[in-house]
Amino acid sequence: MPRQIPVLAAKLRALGFTGDPASFADLTGQPMGAIVSLGGCTASFVSPDGLIVTNHHCVTGSLQFNSTPDRNLLRDGYFAPALADELPNGPGSRVFVTTSAVEVTPDITAGLDAAATDRQRYDTIDRRVKARVAACERDGSRCTVAAFFEGRQYFEIKQLEIKDVRLVYAPAEGIGVFGGETDNWRWPRHTGDWSYLRAYVGNDGKTAAYDKNNVPYRPKRWLKVAAGGVKPNDLVFVVGYPGRTQRHQTYAEVKETVEWALPRSIRLAEEQLALIDTLTKQNPAVAVKLAARVQGLNNGLTNSRGVLEGMMQGGALAKKQAREQELVAWISATPARQQKYGKALAALQAIQSQGEATRERNAVLNLLPSASSYLGSAQTLYRLSVERPKPDIARDPGFQERDWPRIREAQDRLQRTLDPASDRALLRWALGKAAALPAGQRIEPLDRAVGLGAAMDKAAAESAVDRYVAGLYAGTKLADRDTRMTGLERSTAELAATGDTFIALAAALEPLAEANREAAKNRAGAYARIRPVYMDAMLDKAGGLLAPDANSTLRVTYGQVKGVDTRDGLFYKPQTTLQGIMEKHTGNGDFDAPQKELDAIKALREGKTTPFFDRGVNDVPVNFLSTVDTTGGNSGSPTLNAKGELVGLLFDGTYESVSSDYLFDSVKTRSIHVDSRYILWTMAEVDGAKRLLNEMGVSLTAPAAAKAPAKTAVPAKAPAAAR
Amino acid sequence: MPRQIPVLAAKLRALGFTGDPASFADLTGQPMGAIVSLGGCTASFVSPDGLIVTNHHCVTGSLQFNSTPDRNLLRDGYFAPALADELPNGPGSRVFVTTSAVEVTPDITAGLDAAATDRQRYDTIDRRVKARVAACERDGSRCTVAAFFEGRQYFEIKQLEIKDVRLVYAPAEGIGVFGGETDNWRWPRHTGDWSYLRAYVGNDGKTAAYDKNNVPYRPKRWLKVAAGGVKPNDLVFVVGYPGRTQRHQTYAEVKETVEWALPRSIRLAEEQLALIDTLTKQNPAVAVKLAARVQGLNNGLTNSRGVLEGMMQGGALAKKQAREQELVAWISATPARQQKYGKALAALQAIQSQGEATRERNAVLNLLPSASSYLGSAQTLYRLSVERPKPDIARDPGFQERDWPRIREAQDRLQRTLDPASDRALLRWALGKAAALPAGQRIEPLDRAVGLGAAMDKAAAESAVDRYVAGLYAGTKLADRDTRMTGLERSTAELAATGDTFIALAAALEPLAEANREAAKNRAGAYARIRPVYMDAMLDKAGGLLAPDANSTLRVTYGQVKGVDTRDGLFYKPQTTLQGIMEKHTGNGDFDAPQKELDAIKALREGKTTPFFDRGVNDVPVNFLSTVDTTGGNSGSPTLNAKGELVGLLFDGTYESVSSDYLFDSVKTRSIHVDSRYILWTMAEVDGAKRLLNEMGVSLTAPAAAKAPAKTAVPAKAPAAAR
Repeated sequence: MPRQIPVLAAKLRALGFTGDPASFADLTGQPMGAIVSLGGCTASFVSPDGLIVTNHHCVTGSLQFNSTPDRNLLRDGYFAPALADELPNGPGSRVFVTTSAVEVTPDITAGLDAAATDRQRYDTIDRRVKARVAACERDGSRCTVAAFFEGRQYFEIKQLEIKDVRLVYAPAEGIGVFGGETDNWRWPRHTGDWSYLRAYVGNDGKTAAYDKNNVPYRPKRWLKVAAGGVKPNDLVFVVGYPGRTQRHQTYAEVKETVEWALPRSIRLAEEQLALIDTLTKQNPAVAVKLAARVQGLNNGLTNSRGVLEGMMQGGALAKKQAREQELVAWISATPARQQKYGKALAALQAIQSQGEATRERNAVLNLLPSASSYLGSAQTLYRLSVERPKPDIARDPGFQERDWPRIREAQDRLQRTLDPASDRALLRWALGKAAALPAGQRIEPLDRAVGLGAAMDKAAAESAVDRYVAGLYAGTKLADRDTRMTGLERSTAELAATGDTFIALAAALEPLAEANREAAKNRAGAYARIRPVYMDAMLDKAGGLLAPDANSTLRVTYGQVKGVDTRDGLFYKPQTTLQGIMEKHTGNGDFDAPQKELDAIKALREGKTTPFFDRGVNDVPVNFLSTVDTTGGNSGSPTLNAKGELVGLLFDGTYESVSSDYLFDSVKTRSIHVDSRYILWTMAEVDGAKRLLNEMGVSLTAPAAAKAPAKTAVPAKAPAAAR
Repeated sequence: MPRQIPVLAAKLRALGFTGDPASFADLTGQPMGAIVSLGGCTASFVSPDGLIVTNHHCVTGSLQFNSTPDRNLLRDGYFAPALADELPNGPGSRVFVTTSAVEVTPDITAGLDAAATDRQRYDTIDRRVKARVAACERDGSRCTVAAFFEGRQYFEIKQLEIKDVRLVYAPAEGIGVFGGETDNWRWPRHTGDWSYLRAYVGNDGKTAAYDKNNVPYRPKRWLKVAAGGVKPNDLVFVVGYPGRTQRHQTYAEVKETVEWALPRSIRLAEEQLALIDTLTKQNPAVAVKLAARVQGLNNGLTNSRGVLEGMMQGGALAKKQAREQELVAWISATPARQQKYGKALAALQAIQSQGEATRERNAVLNLLPSASSYLGSAQTLYRLSVERPKPDIARDPGFQERDWPRIREAQDRLQRTLDPASDRALLRWALGKAAALPAGQRIEPLDRAVGLGAAMDKAAAESAVDRYVAGLYAGTKLADRDTRMTGLERSTAELAATGDTFIALAAALEPLAEANREAAKNRAGAYARIRPVYMDAMLDKAGGLLAPDANSTLRVTYGQVKGVDTRDGLFYKPQTTLQGIMEKHTGNGDFDAPQKELDAIKALREGKTTPFFDRGVNDVPVNFLSTVDTTGGNSGSPTLNAKGELVGLLFDGTYESVSSDYLFDSVKTRSIHVDSRYILWTMAEVDGAKRLLNEMGVSLTAPAAAKAPAKTAVPAKAPAAAR
């Protein structure tokens, strides 16, 4: 947590840090004030005029939104020659600037009745959180009350929400996604994973919806681009919004993930990808609509496999067990500890085991709307109609008035990815999973609706599913945008009266879904009681030196630029260069660098000078590895040097790192960054983005030191002498 | 060439060589006298009692030959507890000890009539070579007259041929083939690719066929195992029998290989592997019979792909062209050179282009017997019946009296791999290739026999092939061993009279095959005239500093133990260790280390000491990389240190090296060796082969220096402190 950085001052100084560690604790200071969230990705201001840099893979939706049949921005990239050419980023695009983080633990947990039921405890916390959020948002800010250390602490995070975000520049796919799925989570890497956005506000400087007369937002803080880049062993910081880690789960919880959840999600992802592959082969036009889903499935699949490998072959699961056994032994060692912590672990396991009896059923219940956007949409409309009549504070999270604009935007955006034939094929597949559930874990309302039963043979079940699915898609109008948007305003009775088949399915499933949510609330109340005790034990044993799990709030991590002995006999060098782009380029598929980039590399080889040449690697550096600790949500995070200047963007981790979400492995874990010098070189030499370089204050004159001849002549790489 | 080593004395001394470089020129001295050929693999004597060490993959046939339904030596390995338990290696197994290499260039090329036709030139050389060989073999030796520098020089190589070879020790498949096809040609590598044989002779010390009363051969020279192993940058030598390289081919020849031959052989290998995969899925028992074929196809496929990648993406083809252009410019630079060399290149291209018009036809003609062992056998029988009546000196190479025992052994051995159903499926596939040949390149006798034509549609051709193939396999007795063996004695008329369908096919194809051989002899005569001129030009330009292409004769290469920057961002470390076996072990498929090895590693981690521990890598080293220049045929070659002591066995090259057969890349090329310390550790700690360690004079007492604590503690690897 930013507030924990000052205690690390001595360590940071040993690594070359010269600034004031306390600056990291000031969320509105330099550099923290420059770091923003895009909701799922991180980004940072890099000019006084609201210019924002983030990853390319964080603006895929915007590139898709702004593409037309004649103009494929996903493939070709985009550069706005002038402010007026900057494109609206599409519905739901937001920039969140964190303005404060205040501890509110007493407000949330004080005076909780020890004798209260778990459900009462849940409800009390839920109401208190909602009340704080409502009060905090009264000035138009976006607020959350986030739990840290498993509910041991709560912080109220307040954010300025900028609603007019525009696309300024993204390189072509052959740079921004170079390596594609083949290289995803891999090293060596040569991906130009950057893009630029700009925050706009009303003429009054206040946040406002998109309007062509809006003006660039003028942030209080922005990052300066470092002149020199990084070299091996340099200290680097990454500041961003990591999403979720599970390092403080119990061994039993991680074991369930490893033995049940991950193999299951790998199997389901493989099946879906195979199905989608067949669908898009039959109809190539559908590929564009399913592109994001395929990317997500592939990304998750590789991640799941990596976690599984790390936990099993890498031995992390056994290490997790050993650590828990140490904790148990430590607790048993004194009566005082036994008194305080002795029952927590068994209690956590008891809660966990409650879920196991119906986990197959509930997993399929959740799979259905993720397979079919029609069903997902119907469930959203139906839930909203149920929640709307309640007082706002009693509405479930995600369905409060503050969430409605986002719900509307999502139903609007859905049009871009909706494809009836593939939706139907995927739902049919998911219903097959429901048909195969064991007795005792059946989704009974679905059995009744479809005409399924546990004892049914496969062929009979399949034909029942086929009949049912045919009726479903014949009887729905949810593919129509206006039907969905007006549906968001309707009451439960009005929705039922439409006779829409998907609404009817959502209504049929709702009682079971509601029962599951109720059970989850009870469990959450129990966890709110026990997890902080378990966490107290771990903190107590560790002398307080533990970071809380990631929870989508602003965090700082530091480390060094460093390669890794990834496997016996194999070393990942810390940096890659343009040379590797030439090695990998095949002219098609995942390795298709644009001709203008190849030309620019050729010009460099023939002696053209650039200030972004690195004498250490004798080339323009492209990507680098560091030991910082990151996870999903950190994408787009700025990488800062010891002076707090921008030296790159975090965009990925190595395959060997992904199990660190469960148990951090400080030896093997490496994050992957795009080097700022590759960004700047491409802007200057390939994409003609000098307007932005000027705005960022980047000098295109090489520093005097680079005039000396390169230390090592590498003939294979041609002259490329820095001037 | 061994005789070229003394001129490299200064270079070798700079790398740490302390011996007498002239020793490499003495083929019967130390160490050269200890190096032997197995015919396709290299090996070396390692004891005064004829103990031989080579690769595991060089004794696959012997392990297969000695396996029974109850005793799977391929899977389990074999260790003979005593001399009496050493197993006969199977028919055709030989050890060749080179006893002399004498230059005979004048005997072969003197007084050749410049006005002679190419065919006359071929015949003259052919007769002279055969006469020398016959004279040389009069004392029972095996002799060859080998061309060096494209026929610029000839050497007579004389070898002692040992015919009683026995299997002494091979580790289990989980060690000897650890990594399997997955790791083949790859790094990092952890393959225990060694095995031990022993040469036996009659009581009189003379070579003799297998007899249980034979006694171990006592070689004049044998290698001593180095006590200390190797470390990075150490000088190493590899001595062996590299098979064939094409570095002195013209650009046009290499281009034809890259653009026509390699893509074709890749396609054919992929098709055959897919077909065999289907066949073995239908009938798993066949897998054993086809195992060697599958291994060969896979190995060749990966090699071909690697060469193609190296030539195209790696740019070796362009470099080859540039070098030839330099040569052409160098020749054009003076009238004297033009006079001497000016016409050679164009003449070589003219010869090459003669073959192009019928290359598709001839490639299919050669494919047929390689697809069908029945046809291969029929062609051997038929050819032998045609050649036998001729005087020995007029018989074609391979069919002279000296070749007959080998022909008999091959027809005997064939029984192990013959499977009618898969032979039929593969011949059917190959006939499909013949059916698809373009007009003008048809195999006319085949068209007549099968009833095919260029204009025929695919379905009609397929049913004609099916009909024909059904008749072929119904009308042959060649699957019967005795039929083949007696067939080797029959005259052409007697063979025809058997009415065997495959003999009839062989007879039908023979006139075209004979015409092709005649054309080849004419081309060989022309090449014998021109290639030496082209080679003279290259040697002249290089000031004589060129090695001749590999030609299966005894060679020496030297280099250093060294990792490699294999691709941008990736470094292959020079050594691997036991740690990597633990990392890769999955317990099945290609990564299934034996339990007794896992136990031995565990014991080491728990503190058991071994003299084979390496302080530099803090573990027992397993494989290492070096810069030596090797190719197929070098398999099993001893790796020697600067003192000429055994430090490992060469067994593979990296994928990035294979295009070095066409153009040597001194930056990327690396050979892969198994470290002698892994061999010795396994013999001592896993396979209980102390009998052999004693025989080799290996001490199991750790040297005093190893008593010091390890320099670097690597906690992930557990204590493993050397004592």
